[in-house]
Amino acid sequence: MFKQKYSSQLLEKAVDEFSSLPGIGRKSALRLALHLLKQPVENIERFGSSFIALRKGVKYCNCCNMITDSDTCSVCADSRRDRQTICVVESIRDVLSIENTEQYNGLYHVLGGIISPMDGIGPADLPIGKLVERVQEGDVKEVILALSTSMEGETTSFFLYKKLSGLNIKISTIARGVGFGDDLEYTDELTLGKSIQNRHLFKL
Amino acid sequence: MFKQKYSSQLLEKAVDEFSSLPGIGRKSALRLALHLLKQPVENIERFGSSFIALRKGVKYCNCCNMITDSDTCSVCADSRRDRQTICVVESIRDVLSIENTEQYNGLYHVLGGIISPMDGIGPADLPIGKLVERVQEGDVKEVILALSTSMEGETTSFFLYKKLSGLNIKISTIARGVGFGDDLEYTDELTLGKSIQNRHLFKL
Repeated sequence: MFKQKYSSQLLEKAVDEFSSLPGIGRKSALRLALHLLKQPVENIERFGSSFIALRKGVKYCNCCNMITDSDTCSVCADSRRDRQTICVVESIRDVLSIENTEQYNGLYHVLGGIISPMDGIGPADLPIGKLVERVQEGDVKEVILALSTSMEGETTSFFLYKKLSGLNIKISTIARGVGFGDDLEYTDELTLGKSIQNRHLFKL
Repeated sequence: MFKQKYSSQLLEKAVDEFSSLPGIGRKSALRLALHLLKQPVENIERFGSSFIALRKGVKYCNCCNMITDSDTCSVCADSRRDRQTICVVESIRDVLSIENTEQYNGLYHVLGGIISPMDGIGPADLPIGKLVERVQEGDVKEVILALSTSMEGETTSFFLYKKLSGLNIKISTIARGVGFGDDLEYTDELTLGKSIQNRHLFKL
């Protein structure tokens, strides 16, 4: 690809750094760098140092692998949470999304990835043993599998099901179906079909 | 707006910083922050410090106001450039875009803004006196006005025209018309109308 020449090496380096981020091309990177240039020096210093502080200071919860500032995350440390339910998710972002709904009061288990032979990620690379340990040692009654419905997600769910099925707990998965507010005619066939198969009693 | 809670203060700060950039919302900011988290510490340090270095080290060309690492930008310092032509643009990005075309060999004059009473920017806030000086002192034969066709851009072009018209130089403006490869039927009426008005002899 043709690489644009910049009139300043410093500008070029800043653009290089911004465009190393996912989803940011060189045009956007230039726009962002020139935006920063207009800010007071203190703001830029705060901007730059926030990422260094994050990278150096961040910890992962001893229990569920969630990102945290201490050894145990705020969910695991909260005595009001239901400790009998663990929701297994792929990423930190999934936890934040579920927490945002304010509809879940149990604990989490962040895998940090899913089984993906194409990317060289096998079951041994994920903290699955730790999950089994948590179930065995704690008073866990239910594990909710909230992984994606991709090939890799389904494989991981199946693997987890096999690992957990002998432990005398309920293993559930989140409901899939037509989204609230979505039109049936614009819903893909697979989702619509599953939503009819998995129908449940009408509740008011 | 509802503000998402994060499990880590450090993460929240990093997300705050990213989402302070134009065009980056909190969801994208979270994605970017979590991306950085996976990088080696050295990369993050280089990332953060590049913007501080840019902000602290950047200079503006004494002559044309272009961003540069020294006192004079590479265009103004280049003896092979045509010093009789000055192209007036609004921003640094415009210079980079024109340089990218490799079709212009003259000098530039970066205004760093346009006359905009709504934003409280008057002619006195722009380096217009400096442009007049450059024309009077140098051996300038032509000034090309390459400002936008917005109300503010047109006002600024008109103001510059008035200031420069007594100086015995040619004052030109860039061609507007149907873009190369564009379909006539999808071109807006104003552009298409102007492109017919401003037709020129067919050249091979």
